[in-house]
Amino acid sequence: MESGSNALEVLDESESLALRGAAEVGRVGVVVDGQPLIFPVNHVLEGRSIIVRTDSSRMLGGASLAKVAFEADGFDARARSGWTVLAQGIGNDVTDALDAASERLQAVPVAPWAPGPKPRLLRIDVRTITGRRFAGERSDT
Amino acid sequence: MESGSNALEVLDESESLALRGAAEVGRVGVVVDGQPLIFPVNHVLEGRSIIVRTDSSRMLGGASLAKVAFEADGFDARARSGWTVLAQGIGNDVTDALDAASERLQAVPVAPWAPGPKPRLLRIDVRTITGRRFAGERSDT
Repeated sequence: MESGSNALEVLDESESLALRGAAEVGRVGVVVDGQPLIFPVNHVLEGRSIIVRTDSSRMLGGASLAKVAFEADGFDARARSGWTVLAQGIGNDVTDALDAASERLQAVPVAPWAPGPKPRLLRIDVRTITGRRFAGERSDT
Repeated sequence: MESGSNALEVLDESESLALRGAAEVGRVGVVVDGQPLIFPVNHVLEGRSIIVRTDSSRMLGGASLAKVAFEADGFDARARSGWTVLAQGIGNDVTDALDAASERLQAVPVAPWAPGPKPRLLRIDVRTITGRRFAGERSDT
C-alpha cells in the first residue's frame, strides 16, 4: 500500500519479528497484584526470545512472569503513519541460571541507555506475536 | 542535570503530567485473563484524566478496567537520553455514558492516526503517576 492510502495492514509473524528487531526501545508489560505496569527497555533478540537487562524490582520482584507482554512501535507524526508489534510470552529470570543456554544469554551484550547497574536478566520466550502497520491520512492536504 | 552526566532523575507529579501531555503517542496497558496487553494510542488530557478513542475490542471487551496503565516515553538514540512516565488508574468506557461530564468528553477531539472508525471512548482516571528522566552516557566519546 502506498503512503496516504489510509490502509491498515495486518502483518504476518515474520514481518512482525523483523519490525520488532529494528526497534531500539521496546516496552515490557507485567501484572503486579492485578495492576498492569509498563516499562520501556532496551533489548536484544536471540532467536524467538527477547533479552532485557533491568534493575526493576517491580518488573521482576512481585510480578508473575508466567504471562508477560512485549510491545514495540514506530510512528511518524508528520505522515501520521506507524506500526506496532505485540508479543505475548513467558518471562524467565535467567540472572543466576546455570544451564548452558542461560550462560550464553548472560554474555549477550544488552546495552541499556538508562544509567545505573542492571543486574537482572529477563528472557521472554515469545508464544504469539502480532503486528499492524498503517499509512495515515496526511493532514497537510 | 546536564547532558552526559549519566544521571537518573526522579520526576515529581507535575513534571510527570507535563511530559505525559507533550507525548503524541502513549500506550494503554490492560489485563485480559491474566495476560498483560499493550496498545499504542493517541490521546488527549482532560484534567487528571486521559481520553482515548479506540476500536479495540481486546482493550475494552474482555479487560477489567478497574486497573489500567498508561505509559508515555521519549528517547534520543544518539544522546542515549530519555524520559518515561507511568500512570496507574481506573478505566471507564464512557462511549454511551449520558452524564454531563461524559457528554462533554464525547465532544473532545481525539484524533487517532490509525485509520478506521474508533467508536469507543475510554477515560482513564489517574490515581498515581511516576516519572523518570535521564541523560545517558554519550557513546561517541
